Amino acid sequence: MRYELLRLLREKGDRVSGEALSRELGVSRVSVWKSVRELSAAGYDISATSRGYFLVSSPDVLLPGEFPGWEDRVHHLDEVDSTMIVARGLARKGAVHGTLVTAERQTGGRGRLERSWFSPKGGIYMTLVTRPSVAAGMAPRINLLSAVAVASAVESLHGISARVKWPNDVLVDGKKLCGILAEMEAEMDAVRFVNIGVGLNANVQITDAFPDAVSLSQLLGHDVNRRLLAREIVESILRRLQCVQSADILDEWRCYAHTLGRRVSIATGNTAVEGLAIDIDDFGALLVKRDDGTLMTVVAGDCTHRTD
Amino acid sequence: MRYELLRLLREKGDRVSGEALSRELGVSRVSVWKSVRELSAAGYDISATSRGYFLVSSPDVLLPGEFPGWEDRVHHLDEVDSTMIVARGLARKGAVHGTLVTAERQTGGRGRLERSWFSPKGGIYMTLVTRPSVAAGMAPRINLLSAVAVASAVESLHGISARVKWPNDVLVDGKKLCGILAEMEAEMDAVRFVNIGVGLNANVQITDAFPDAVSLSQLLGHDVNRRLLAREIVESILRRLQCVQSADILDEWRCYAHTLGRRVSIATGNTAVEGLAIDIDDFGALLVKRDDGTLMTVVAGDCTHRTD
Repeated sequence: MRYELLRLLREKGDRVSGEALSRELGVSRVSVWKSVRELSAAGYDISATSRGYFLVSSPDVLLPGEFPGWEDRVHHLDEVDSTMIVARGLARKGAVHGTLVTAERQTGGRGRLERSWFSPKGGIYMTLVTRPSVAAGMAPRINLLSAVAVASAVESLHGISARVKWPNDVLVDGKKLCGILAEMEAEMDAVRFVNIGVGLNANVQITDAFPDAVSLSQLLGHDVNRRLLAREIVESILRRLQCVQSADILDEWRCYAHTLGRRVSIATGNTAVEGLAIDIDDFGALLVKRDDGTLMTVVAGDCTHRTD
Repeated sequence: MRYELLRLLREKGDRVSGEALSRELGVSRVSVWKSVRELSAAGYDISATSRGYFLVSSPDVLLPGEFPGWEDRVHHLDEVDSTMIVARGLARKGAVHGTLVTAERQTGGRGRLERSWFSPKGGIYMTLVTRPSVAAGMAPRINLLSAVAVASAVESLHGISARVKWPNDVLVDGKKLCGILAEMEAEMDAVRFVNIGVGLNANVQITDAFPDAVSLSQLLGHDVNRRLLAREIVESILRRLQCVQSADILDEWRCYAHTLGRRVSIATGNTAVEGLAIDIDDFGALLVKRDDGTLMTVVAGDCTHRTD
C-alpha cells in the first residue's frame, strides 16, 4: 500500500489531501497516515499539513519504492557482504524472475574471477535474479546483453558514450565504470537462474589506487541520481533478456564493443591468447585472429586491450 | 585403514595371516582385527581362522570400498531421495573433484527436464561431483562425454553395443539403458562444479510400464556386477573430463551417436524442430537440417528419433 501511495504522490507532484488519497487508494485515512509514517521512517520527506501530503524529496537510497511496479521484489540492504550472496540464497529458495537485491555498500563485493570489488557508499550495487528459458550454453550471452544494457542506460540518462569490453565490463574513455558479474545454476538443458550483479561507480571518488577506474560523478562534475539510473539499468536488462535468443543481442553488443578491432591479450587458465579481436560468435565467445593467421575461439578469460 | 586392508585382501586373493597384514599395513594386529570387524559389519564376508583372513565375497552394494583409490570421496547411501540433491549439498560445501554419491535406491530419482526416474534396487544410481576448468558455455560437452563414458564402459565390460542419443541418453537396440543428468553452478567465466548423475538399469526387471527402457540383466539373461560397472563408469567419465577441451570428445561422441543421420523431432520450449540430425557443433549443440534445406542449431531439447 505504501508504495501505491508513493507512486500517487509522485504522479501528482503536488499536495494531495488525505481524503483524495484515501479515495483513490480505497483505504481509510488512518491507513494513508500510517503509510506516510512508514515512508517517512524509510527516509522519504513527506510534508503533511491540514491541506494534505506532499512528497518533498526521496532519500538517495535504492529503496524498493524507487522501482515502481515491482517494489515487492526488491530487497534493499544498507550494508551487505555481497548482493550476489543474498540473491543466490533468494534464488535457491525460488525467488521469481526480476527479484532485485540492492545495497548502499558492500563489505565483501566480488568481481569476476574471485577478485574483490571496491564498493563504497555512492556506488550502485545490485543483483538481479533472472530465470530466462535458455540452455546453459546460451547463457554467456547474458553477460553481453547486461553490459550493453548498462552502457545504453548510462548513455541515455547521462549522455556519456560508454563502451563494452569483452566479456562484461563497461568502459568510458577506456576506463572501467561498471563491472558485471553473472552466476548461474543450471541443468545442461535449462537454466535454473542467472543472477546478474552490477557494480557501478556512480557517485564515488576514485582514488589513485584504481588508476583504470572512473566514476560518473568524476566524469560529470556532479552527483547523479542513482535511483533513476539503477531503475533504468534493471529495466534495460530485463527488456533485452526477452530476446536473448535473438541475434540482435549480439549485433547490439558489436555496436557497443570497445574490444573488436583491437589487439587483445586474453589470459585463459595457464595460457594467453594474443591477436586481433575480430568478432564474437553465437555463444558470446570472442574470435581472435593470431599473428600466424589462425583463428581462436575464446570462451572465457581475462582480456587486456593492447596498444602496441 | 580398513580400505587398505580390503585392497590387500583383494590383491592377495588368498588367506593372509594377521601378522603379515599387520606388517604390510604398519599397524597392530588389534587394528587389523578391528578393521576386519568394520568390513564385516558393512557386509564384506571375511573368513577369519587361526591361519589368517580371507575375503570370501563383497556385498552387492556400491560401498566406498568398491572404488579403490578414492574411497574417502565416496558417500554411500542405502536409500535417498536423489543422489543429485546430496551431491549438490556436498559440492556447495566444497567437496573436491571426484566426490561420488552412490545409492541402492532412490525415492525421488530425477531425470532430465524435471521428470522422475524409476530407481528400484538393482540399478546403479550415483552422482559424481566434478570441477572441470572450463567456461560455462563449454560445459554442455560434459553431457556428451558422460554418455559416451557409460556406453564405452558397458561395451567393454559386457560386450553389448551401446549407443548415445543426443544429448545424453544411452541406448541399446534403441531402448534406454541409462540416463545422464548434469547440473552446474557457474560464473559465466568458470564452472564452479558440474554434478553428473547416472541412472542405469543394471539388475532391474523392466516392467511393461516402461516399454522404451531396457536393463542389462534382461539383455544378458543374468545379473551383472554393479560394483565393477559403477567403478568403470566413474573412471571412464573422469578420464574423458581431462580432455573436455579437446575435439576428440566430440569425435568420440560422433562414433557412438545413434542420433546422427536420423530424422529427429526436437521439442524446445513451445516449438519443435524436425529434420535430419547431421552433426554436433563445438559446444555440443545438434545441427539439424530441415526439409526446406535450412540448418538449425539446437542447444537443448527433448529429442525423438523418428522412423517415418
